[in-house]
Amino acid sequence: MEQAEIGLIGLGVMGSNLSLNIAEKGNRIAVFNRSPEATRKFYAEAGDLQGQIIPCETLEEFVESIRPPRPIIIMIKAGDPVDQQMEALKPYLSAGDIMIDAGNANFRDTMRRFDTLKDSGLTFIGMGVSGGEEGARHGPSIMVGGKEESWKRVDKVLTSISAKFNDEPCVAWLGENGAGHFVKTIHNGIEYADMQMIAEIYGILRDGLGMSAAEIGEVFGKWNTGRLNSYLIEISETVLKATDPVSSTPMVDMIVDRAGQKGTGKWSVIEAQNMGVAATAIEAAVAGRILSSQKKEREEAEAILGLPTLAEAPKDRAAFLADLENALLAAKIGAYAQGFAVMSAASTEFGWNLPMPTIARIWRAGCIIRSAFLDEITSAFTKDPDVANLIVTPAFSQMVKETDGALRRVVSYAALSGLPAPALSSALAYFDAYRRGRGTANLIQAQRDFFGAHGFERVDGLDRPHGPWGSGLNQG
Amino acid sequence: MEQAEIGLIGLGVMGSNLSLNIAEKGNRIAVFNRSPEATRKFYAEAGDLQGQIIPCETLEEFVESIRPPRPIIIMIKAGDPVDQQMEALKPYLSAGDIMIDAGNANFRDTMRRFDTLKDSGLTFIGMGVSGGEEGARHGPSIMVGGKEESWKRVDKVLTSISAKFNDEPCVAWLGENGAGHFVKTIHNGIEYADMQMIAEIYGILRDGLGMSAAEIGEVFGKWNTGRLNSYLIEISETVLKATDPVSSTPMVDMIVDRAGQKGTGKWSVIEAQNMGVAATAIEAAVAGRILSSQKKEREEAEAILGLPTLAEAPKDRAAFLADLENALLAAKIGAYAQGFAVMSAASTEFGWNLPMPTIARIWRAGCIIRSAFLDEITSAFTKDPDVANLIVTPAFSQMVKETDGALRRVVSYAALSGLPAPALSSALAYFDAYRRGRGTANLIQAQRDFFGAHGFERVDGLDRPHGPWGSGLNQG
Repeated sequence: MEQAEIGLIGLGVMGSNLSLNIAEKGNRIAVFNRSPEATRKFYAEAGDLQGQIIPCETLEEFVESIRPPRPIIIMIKAGDPVDQQMEALKPYLSAGDIMIDAGNANFRDTMRRFDTLKDSGLTFIGMGVSGGEEGARHGPSIMVGGKEESWKRVDKVLTSISAKFNDEPCVAWLGENGAGHFVKTIHNGIEYADMQMIAEIYGILRDGLGMSAAEIGEVFGKWNTGRLNSYLIEISETVLKATDPVSSTPMVDMIVDRAGQKGTGKWSVIEAQNMGVAATAIEAAVAGRILSSQKKEREEAEAILGLPTLAEAPKDRAAFLADLENALLAAKIGAYAQGFAVMSAASTEFGWNLPMPTIARIWRAGCIIRSAFLDEITSAFTKDPDVANLIVTPAFSQMVKETDGALRRVVSYAALSGLPAPALSSALAYFDAYRRGRGTANLIQAQRDFFGAHGFERVDGLDRPHGPWGSGLNQG
Repeated sequence: MEQAEIGLIGLGVMGSNLSLNIAEKGNRIAVFNRSPEATRKFYAEAGDLQGQIIPCETLEEFVESIRPPRPIIIMIKAGDPVDQQMEALKPYLSAGDIMIDAGNANFRDTMRRFDTLKDSGLTFIGMGVSGGEEGARHGPSIMVGGKEESWKRVDKVLTSISAKFNDEPCVAWLGENGAGHFVKTIHNGIEYADMQMIAEIYGILRDGLGMSAAEIGEVFGKWNTGRLNSYLIEISETVLKATDPVSSTPMVDMIVDRAGQKGTGKWSVIEAQNMGVAATAIEAAVAGRILSSQKKEREEAEAILGLPTLAEAPKDRAAFLADLENALLAAKIGAYAQGFAVMSAASTEFGWNLPMPTIARIWRAGCIIRSAFLDEITSAFTKDPDVANLIVTPAFSQMVKETDGALRRVVSYAALSGLPAPALSSALAYFDAYRRGRGTANLIQAQRDFFGAHGFERVDGLDRPHGPWGSGLNQG
């Protein structure tokens, strides 16, 4: 029997969909699952694709059916289970074989695993896969981290299954060890920010303008034909227009406003802090989910504090809707600029040499944040790969100038009306701090010198680091 | 010769000031420093207090001169040096002796050190000391973490040297192992937020209203007589009114707007993330310092983007100043509510049983964030020690109602004028999310179910977790 080109362990939702995708694109694949019932069920339901699939019920059989050097995708629950699976596999593998963690691993675990295998002859790929089930089945965005020679072994298979944007594959080798999982983590952080900003705009339309779910869906539908064209805006229209089969009312109105999270938003924030990079839009999004999970407290607080009175809605509804569209666009610029800044800092910190244009390029299709906007980012970074910040590229500085007025008016309206806009307002504050050459930290430095003699720099460059205040210890 | 009641290693600025304080309050103290020159210099300059000080040039001599069980304060550079100093000390110590790290340690290191000593007969205190040099010399706020019996050995000395608020000592035992250093970390996070908010208000006065440093100092001086009465507002007035001796212009105008940071703000954010608590005002403050450190990028961005046009300044200047005062008060409520929420979560996570009223009580004097405001927090928590959030206590819900309108108008003005207000706007967004029983995370849940089949809760409680959209895999 012909050997498989690749193997996959873990036939849960993501793993089974990815396996079908691999098979469908003409690649022979061996599959294994801890409980063989799942393997049999998967194979039984694979229809025409059975010919490309080798279902295995022992690890030994599984490994033997793959052509060396063997790439083996592991798509199971992140954390200890992955370490255990790796241990279980090792006895059957040979030098050159590549274990590939395609789950949502913390990149630091990926780096540890990569390092552990250092002298073993085996190697490791940490692969970020975005696009949910649909992406896994029909074309995800894939972010690969590992040795370049490992990448070459899997390039053809992964390119065949990845999403395509204008026929260009949305998969790339991004760097060594943890590069792929780190970039996936930041993708998810940006996803949180995108979703939070959309939710804030939704809140303004629902609670500020009193629009129905279907009406709001209509607005998003219109925006999806413009510069906000994206998967998230498209599905927002879909879910807002959907009806609950039980109550026959809008589905979203029947859903409790308590959002779950799997942890990657939190990791994005922690790593941004570790790198010393401001990622306030992502932080606002994580906080938004945390506060949403405290529903009982929120209801009790509303009972005690009441809701603020809405500010007068702008009379020109069409103009206000145009402002909301541009505000969302402006805020996206801030959130993406922050996300790319975090990746840039990590690239330096870990020596990955992350290719920014490539990251934007492979995010244009397949992944949850896919959008026309990312195509514009790709162009901007391609022209200026080492630019300090997306905001100052010609294309985006122009876009900021065109849209920041709208973001101001929307943040102002939300603030005056008591409609929470944490991500929108943090993106605006980020622009306003980043574009101001003379900020206000001089006061902070003066205070720090006063109470802690920390010293400051002078604008005239004189080496006289203390102010003329206080104790003998810091007499300036 | 009479033995010392306590010992201190590390005669840098903080250590020498703390030692003088200890001696001055009638406690006999042994001191040691790695380089003996510093010890001799310290002793020579101690004047009348020499009688209470035993300067030692060897660790052996140092340890022997302290009455067992020996409390030994270590006040050196945080990190490895502390571990090294502990190792150097151990051979000379006896069962019951207490090493006290009074530096700005990461509480996780404190817990590790505490744990390492578990079966050694020795024990450990992690002590947060706030108030800068002045506080160390004349009365700091002291946050103690360790075994209760260790606390009893040092209670008298620490109470004698601590700051007093209405004669009540600003020192307390807060819980086991890392409790003291954790609380100190959050103190510093809140300090960052306080300072950032003050800087944002300063920016509005300077760049929005065109006021001079001295005029702004006058405004802060007036506020210091009201509900904002606090050390930070007081010193803001002082530094704003100070003149640079070299140029004879306002000192703050000669200081570069590039703020330094030592790390505790970052730690606060990371721990808030670990605890799953929203601490956006602190995050905004850390981001503010990070962005300030990127001065060159900011200047380049301004050259490219230009500054936004200011919105029309409110005609009634006095009313606007009153709004700024109340906005700062309202924003403080948000920042402190967040800080206490982080401590509450950590208390549960680590089993410390942190006493919230006590924490507020010992922060009323001595520490950098000392204020009348903290006296009000003490009362609120004393009446409701287990309240879910400061915002919903009677006193603070009343204060929110009185001041949130001002915060709205100020955030609106700043947004429309391009004056960065990250901390003020994040505090407002926090209130507005916290007090709203029906938020917008229902949309997020709908989207997550759409692309990932994550499932949601229904408002009617029906167990039907998927929406009527998309693939066979998640047909609701």
